[in-house]
Amino acid sequence: MAVVRSMPTEEAEALLDLTRELVAKQVAPRAAADEDAAQFPRDVFRTLGAAGLLSLPYPEEYEGGGQPYEVYLQVLEELAAGWLAVGLGVSVHTLSCYPVAQFGTDEQRAARLPAMLSGELLGAYCLSEPQSGSDAAALTTRALADGDGYTVTGTKAWTTHGGVADFYTVMVRTGEPGPRGISTLIVPADADGLSFAAPERKMGMRSSPTAQVHLDGVRVPLADRIGEEGIGFKIALASLDSGRLGIAACAVGVAQAALDAAVEYARERRQFGAPIADLQGIQFMLADMATAVAAGRALYLTAARLRDAGRPFGKEAAMAKLFCTDAAMRVTTDAVQVFGGYGYTTDFPVERYMREAKVLQIVEGTNQIQRMVIGRHLTRP
Amino acid sequence: MAVVRSMPTEEAEALLDLTRELVAKQVAPRAAADEDAAQFPRDVFRTLGAAGLLSLPYPEEYEGGGQPYEVYLQVLEELAAGWLAVGLGVSVHTLSCYPVAQFGTDEQRAARLPAMLSGELLGAYCLSEPQSGSDAAALTTRALADGDGYTVTGTKAWTTHGGVADFYTVMVRTGEPGPRGISTLIVPADADGLSFAAPERKMGMRSSPTAQVHLDGVRVPLADRIGEEGIGFKIALASLDSGRLGIAACAVGVAQAALDAAVEYARERRQFGAPIADLQGIQFMLADMATAVAAGRALYLTAARLRDAGRPFGKEAAMAKLFCTDAAMRVTTDAVQVFGGYGYTTDFPVERYMREAKVLQIVEGTNQIQRMVIGRHLTRP
Amino acid sequence: MAVVRSMPTEEAEALLDLTRELVAKQVAPRAAADEDAAQFPRDVFRTLGAAGLLSLPYPEEYEGGGQPYEVYLQVLEELAAGWLAVGLGVSVHTLSCYPVAQFGTDEQRAARLPAMLSGELLGAYCLSEPQSGSDAAALTTRALADGDGYTVTGTKAWTTHGGVADFYTVMVRTGEPGPRGISTLIVPADADGLSFAAPERKMGMRSSPTAQVHLDGVRVPLADRIGEEGIGFKIALASLDSGRLGIAACAVGVAQAALDAAVEYARERRQFGAPIADLQGIQFMLADMATAVAAGRALYLTAARLRDAGRPFGKEAAMAKLFCTDAAMRVTTDAVQVFGGYGYTTDFPVERYMREAKVLQIVEGTNQIQRMVIGRHLTRP
Amino acid sequence: MAVVRSMPTEEAEALLDLTRELVAKQVAPRAAADEDAAQFPRDVFRTLGAAGLLSLPYPEEYEGGGQPYEVYLQVLEELAAGWLAVGLGVSVHTLSCYPVAQFGTDEQRAARLPAMLSGELLGAYCLSEPQSGSDAAALTTRALADGDGYTVTGTKAWTTHGGVADFYTVMVRTGEPGPRGISTLIVPADADGLSFAAPERKMGMRSSPTAQVHLDGVRVPLADRIGEEGIGFKIALASLDSGRLGIAACAVGVAQAALDAAVEYARERRQFGAPIADLQGIQFMLADMATAVAAGRALYLTAARLRDAGRPFGKEAAMAKLFCTDAAMRVTTDAVQVFGGYGYTTDFPVERYMREAKVLQIVEGTNQIQRMVIGRHLTRP
Repeated sequence: MAVVRSMPTEEAEALLDLTRELVAKQVAPRAAADEDAAQFPRDVFRTLGAAGLLSLPYPEEYEGGGQPYEVYLQVLEELAAGWLAVGLGVSVHTLSCYPVAQFGTDEQRAARLPAMLSGELLGAYCLSEPQSGSDAAALTTRALADGDGYTVTGTKAWTTHGGVADFYTVMVRTGEPGPRGISTLIVPADADGLSFAAPERKMGMRSSPTAQVHLDGVRVPLADRIGEEGIGFKIALASLDSGRLGIAACAVGVAQAALDAAVEYARERRQFGAPIADLQGIQFMLADMATAVAAGRALYLTAARLRDAGRPFGKEAAMAKLFCTDAAMRVTTDAVQVFGGYGYTTDFPVERYMREAKVLQIVEGTNQIQRMVIGRHLTRP
Repeated sequence: MAVVRSMPTEEAEALLDLTRELVAKQVAPRAAADEDAAQFPRDVFRTLGAAGLLSLPYPEEYEGGGQPYEVYLQVLEELAAGWLAVGLGVSVHTLSCYPVAQFGTDEQRAARLPAMLSGELLGAYCLSEPQSGSDAAALTTRALADGDGYTVTGTKAWTTHGGVADFYTVMVRTGEPGPRGISTLIVPADADGLSFAAPERKMGMRSSPTAQVHLDGVRVPLADRIGEEGIGFKIALASLDSGRLGIAACAVGVAQAALDAAVEYARERRQFGAPIADLQGIQFMLADMATAVAAGRALYLTAARLRDAGRPFGKEAAMAKLFCTDAAMRVTTDAVQVFGGYGYTTDFPVERYMREAKVLQIVEGTNQIQRMVIGRHLTRP
Repeated sequence: MAVVRSMPTEEAEALLDLTRELVAKQVAPRAAADEDAAQFPRDVFRTLGAAGLLSLPYPEEYEGGGQPYEVYLQVLEELAAGWLAVGLGVSVHTLSCYPVAQFGTDEQRAARLPAMLSGELLGAYCLSEPQSGSDAAALTTRALADGDGYTVTGTKAWTTHGGVADFYTVMVRTGEPGPRGISTLIVPADADGLSFAAPERKMGMRSSPTAQVHLDGVRVPLADRIGEEGIGFKIALASLDSGRLGIAACAVGVAQAALDAAVEYARERRQFGAPIADLQGIQFMLADMATAVAAGRALYLTAARLRDAGRPFGKEAAMAKLFCTDAAMRVTTDAVQVFGGYGYTTDFPVERYMREAKVLQIVEGTNQIQRMVIGRHLTRP
Repeated sequence: MAVVRSMPTEEAEALLDLTRELVAKQVAPRAAADEDAAQFPRDVFRTLGAAGLLSLPYPEEYEGGGQPYEVYLQVLEELAAGWLAVGLGVSVHTLSCYPVAQFGTDEQRAARLPAMLSGELLGAYCLSEPQSGSDAAALTTRALADGDGYTVTGTKAWTTHGGVADFYTVMVRTGEPGPRGISTLIVPADADGLSFAAPERKMGMRSSPTAQVHLDGVRVPLADRIGEEGIGFKIALASLDSGRLGIAACAVGVAQAALDAAVEYARERRQFGAPIADLQGIQFMLADMATAVAAGRALYLTAARLRDAGRPFGKEAAMAKLFCTDAAMRVTTDAVQVFGGYGYTTDFPVERYMREAKVLQIVEGTNQIQRMVIGRHLTRP
């Protein structure tokens, strides 16, 4: 049962149809087996790139899709509903391109974006470090300037696509301690001195490699710095505002998939002589799940439309990330419950959805960080 | 700090500004004293009528405002934020006019709507009975047909504006038991045989009279039946779909008012040498409250836009009613908590908001009924 | 349907029976009318005193009941189930006696406790001030020492029984700022310079007066200081550990009363051709309510038994206060919901229970303060 | 930081110390690796049997420990805190022995219990079937009687220890449809016609095999029927009342382990220049987690003491199962959150606790079934 959506244009409607078809044929069917094998689906990203789905919110002049965030996020939601490793991967790739697209010079944009947005080059985004996660401004990866570039040394943590990406958007310290001493560099995967730890072993999302990235005297030319020295933290915060909307959309996708599976199962599974969907206890649970999903979608779309209208949306993005991911955690946990013992097995996808949902409460700012962001907007306006 | 809204037109923007001004000057300042005295503010409804705010979603040809529901509901939200008795009163009045506007003949519309929509005549809506609340289709108020009309006998319960309205939209039994034997009549307040019990004594909303309505052989001419015989339950359900959106908007209004009060208090109240707004425990609570309010607003607007686009919105209206009123209950309870002991006194409005929120979980279908409605949409599509 | 309890002795069983009888005959029947009239039931406390129910946890040699806290709290729970103003009043009175009983000299105990514990003298407890609630150690009421006593000036806030008590246990500043400059005095109601503001106007608990207490040069002889100078904050914290258990028990009483009312109503109210108790949606709600009540009772009894065994119980008391009062807020709010519209009227007691529950989340340390206390026990053991 | 417990005897204290030592040395250290390898730890059960920990609540005359449930459950809690596969395994084994111990003849008890209780023979319990889970009374496994026994054919589902147990306590249909046609048989693992499906592939608890059990014409002599024909459902319900307490205790164990891990991590992990345990947002989360664990423990012990006193405890057991397992799900999910990204990896045990907690909301009656049981106790007393 497809979600009823109100797309702003026929073009957007067509993009959504294309997405659903790709998901049904090439994404969702592989999820379970690839996750089990911890297999990264690099080819899926190529397919999405070829279909124009890796570049949606970026300008058409650089091979982007020129779509509003409202559309991009709904595409993302559909991808994540099919397989979170793909949905989140697209979101991370979009995040990795953001600094170039938003803060790069015309030369940098022209030189880099086409390959990034076509999916030829897959991106990763390096902000966190082993000792600085929530406190991102404390990062210590050092970029020493000399005449024509930087020599970068340090370790980045929790890098999605770490080891499989083609380029890394890296936040480094070029100056004083704190948020004003940070700059943004683009580092290609084959740079000398760049290496990767073995991927983390995780509860879920095993097809989406997360790895530490080691930079050991990596040379980065000046031309690969995005924006002025010292504005890297500002770039990071702006990236995250947009990135959080991506996470929110992914969360709604996973929750919707769990809800759909639970509804279908409840209509088929019979106990006490009737489908369990006839039991009010189950019906009320499904109603609460569906309401949470609908509220989450409405909330992220509201934030997206603010962004599309050029209005401030940081508080709203944090709210959307917080609400949608908390909702996804509850909805997926309850979806397993609707399935009973069957839900706890890998024969059905709901246990995977539940494991996937958990990571979304953590990435791109834990939900505790989101509450800090929202609280500050409220109390220090 | 006014809520950031995206109104669809400049006219709608102006309507909202007008509403805010009326609320600030003529509605909110009276709420506490009038509630304490259980005083019904009939004059406020006249003022709103004169300002064109009692007729917003109805056609301009009958003196209506010709506004989409998206706009009407945001006006309602602002009214409810100032004083729920007024916001809910407008919602009930709008509900009472709905059968005529939607199911009436052209003659009935022309004859009745102008006085209804100008606020000259205030409406009430009579569906529930002492023994049939959630099970509305079991109503027993009897309308016996003779040649040119009906003789109506029975008792209606929980009628908002019972005893102060000018007309009553009444669901009666004209035929067989169950949903197909019900019809809709309009009864003027001065009809012979119509009388009213003393208003219920309630936890809150004491300025909004709720009373039993007794019909003892009331004569109603055929011309005052709306729609065919037997479609009354269909009319009632359609009315409620729209009415629930009104309740949802009112709930968001009350919750927003509580949030605003809590934020302001948290910034001023000092403990441990700093504003309590600096304590993470308070900040996180405010963040959760603000997120619930924003999600509620996004959800009811989504449903309203479906309605405005002529698409099905019954499931979405039930979701909005459920989510927004549950959120309002939590948010207002937490707002009292932010105020500590002060919040428990009538010196601040938050205790009133909390008492007001409770009724919204009950009216126009308890939240249990909403879950039944949503559950059915999900499992018997 | 009386709660199944496991009392430790036959004497305790008899005390409980006596309590239930008194509640059924002399407490519960008056609650609604007296609350409506904001009438303080001084005579009920005399009756309880005469029955030996005002002194339960204190030593028999001073007219106390010599009962363990496990028994005292269950008596309190039954009183609060009948009428919170009485249950909380007994808890506050017990709190007011605690400093004398625990930290007083033998002379002070012999001189004061008999009249306190017999109910001849009703107590009040003065810790909070208008500017220091949660941050109690910042209190500023000044007690200037001279040769044989103190001259006390300041204002105490939120004093339960303020204006109706016979004696006031008052925390004052005798020394340096912060927790170490505080001492404890007993002030009789008729002391010169002692006066009372009008009672606060509150959402509920209107029979339990809460008032500011003004001390304007009140003379207090040295003999009326309890404990050494400077240990007042330690006395206050110890008092609160015990007092919190009283609030927890009161909360369980109110929640149990609400649950009982909801179960009874659900068995009688018919909709859709059967009692609403047959609907799984209602049954599950009642099951969750009953489970919360049972867990709350089990938790406060666990803390009480630690106290009775002379073991540390501060963390457990804070947990019990937090859990039981949050549970009471949810359970009473849901009890109103089970009643539907009827629950919102004053014809049934559930709306009163809901208004009563709210104050319990605030008094004797807001639930935010409880979380701070628990958090510190956990992380700085 | 060991949990503070109040054990009723010194013997019980010693049992608990023994348990903690065994857990620390022989259980907890193996959990992660064995779970990863889906390795069933048969030898651990032998060790526990040798230590007398497999028989605690059963009579000493049959090699049981003669301990009250209050003690047995706390031992179980400690085992589950170390490794749920072991804790739950002991609970299931105890459940499997229950029909013989409670409903068997003296001969059956003497002949069977010693080997069962010493841990020589490990048990499994077969009630659910593929088409009858929550509706257990609809089971269809057929036992056809002839002169001296039964021939049993059918399939049992969700059998913990299926394929590794030494005996199976099996509910079969010997008579009419519905609850009165069910009987209880004991079937040895090597019976002809008994076979096992491959273990289910599960989200967690992979060291605890769950498998379908096929009975294809299995011969069971009359002597291996426990109780009269037709009382099997009564036996099953009585078994489950006790079994639910075991699940509740296991849930508290897992939750306590998660809480302990989160507290320890919060004290060590530094962000913003201090341990994250100093952040109120984290402290409050830990406080809520600890309170839920303490309330759960208090609740299951209350139910256990009722059972130990020979009083009805079915409602209380259902409450304990419901509350403790829902609490464990929340607490473990939040424990992962406290760890942030680290919590999502298998480097720390919290992700395992979260996966383990989920199964507890499902087994021995889903939490929806528990709400039905509680609801019936409340509304049809």
